Amino acid sequence: MQKLVDRIERDANYLGKGIIKMDSFLNHQVDIELAEQMAEEFCMRFSGLPAVTKVITVETSGIPVAVFVARQLGVPMLFARKSKSLLMQENYYTAETVSRTRQTKTGLYISGEYLTVNDDVLFIDDFLATGQSSIALMDIIKQSGAKVHGLGYIIEKPQEGGRQKLAHFGVQIESLAAVTWQDDELKISFG
Amino acid sequence: MQKLVDRIERDANYLGKGIIKMDSFLNHQVDIELAEQMAEEFCMRFSGLPAVTKVITVETSGIPVAVFVARQLGVPMLFARKSKSLLMQENYYTAETVSRTRQTKTGLYISGEYLTVNDDVLFIDDFLATGQSSIALMDIIKQSGAKVHGLGYIIEKPQEGGRQKLAHFGVQIESLAAVTWQDDELKISFG
Repeated sequence: MQKLVDRIERDANYLGKGIIKMDSFLNHQVDIELAEQMAEEFCMRFSGLPAVTKVITVETSGIPVAVFVARQLGVPMLFARKSKSLLMQENYYTAETVSRTRQTKTGLYISGEYLTVNDDVLFIDDFLATGQSSIALMDIIKQSGAKVHGLGYIIEKPQEGGRQKLAHFGVQIESLAAVTWQDDELKISFG
Repeated sequence: MQKLVDRIERDANYLGKGIIKMDSFLNHQVDIELAEQMAEEFCMRFSGLPAVTKVITVETSGIPVAVFVARQLGVPMLFARKSKSLLMQENYYTAETVSRTRQTKTGLYISGEYLTVNDDVLFIDDFLATGQSSIALMDIIKQSGAKVHGLGYIIEKPQEGGRQKLAHFGVQIESLAAVTWQDDELKISFG
């Protein structure tokens, strides 16, 4: 997606070790117009999917784009929590992943009340890197009996091999931009 | 706001000790249409404010409504983080609050790059209860030199006295619904 590639080229900072700072438009401050345009791009790319009943993301940075995707599809948005709130007392699904930017193990949690065997899911997230977080999410969705039809990522880091690890799920995978690096240099291309 | 009051009456669960579960439309699964309508209501109520340059919220549940408010105002949305990511290396503002539903102390963090003396802020959050979280946020905004013009809450819990604690800031405070409780019974009214 050209607008996203341009924005990454202009505003992203490469901090080393595969960590790219996009806090000015994606991960802290959010460019709302860009978020809406990215959602339109996702909806176009996923237009061949069976009818989706729920858009799922993981808190926090995927939420704005997931909100606009859900709006366009006319379905609720559900965000997986990274910690279990006191309100999640029973009937929840969980799986473990690792936070890249915090270097800690994190559980993902979704309440069984809002994800059931009748749901058809489109998953939207900010990054596809090692795929660990998506695999945890797929595990949760499998526990619920719901079906996943598409995995959409704003930015993919192909060097980290996530797409290969997700291939066996047999679902459509889309990313809007791909970012690779060598030494201290970042290369940005279309996803 | 009638639609919100109706929805709380229909779908909220009172768990005792002032904790109300609204996970089916606000805090976990999000009703996107309602979120957009609530944003329109906020924009109407705050239409008398000076030009806002930034909509600020705290991760996570306030984000969907803050996204639509920012969209309508044509400005970026900035969410305060509840933990310091590795990407926030220096030049950030922080203040401490307490998470109600997790019963733990939490820091709020905003990068100094995205909040400056030139910013005019509208703050949007899901709950106004004791006001602690908003006071921490006001502290952060004061550190940055930015000005706050309005505080908008989806749900207010008047019994917990937050509005009184925020009164001395002298800014417009709006809530879309008010929830009170006595024993195990919840009462919902217009905010």
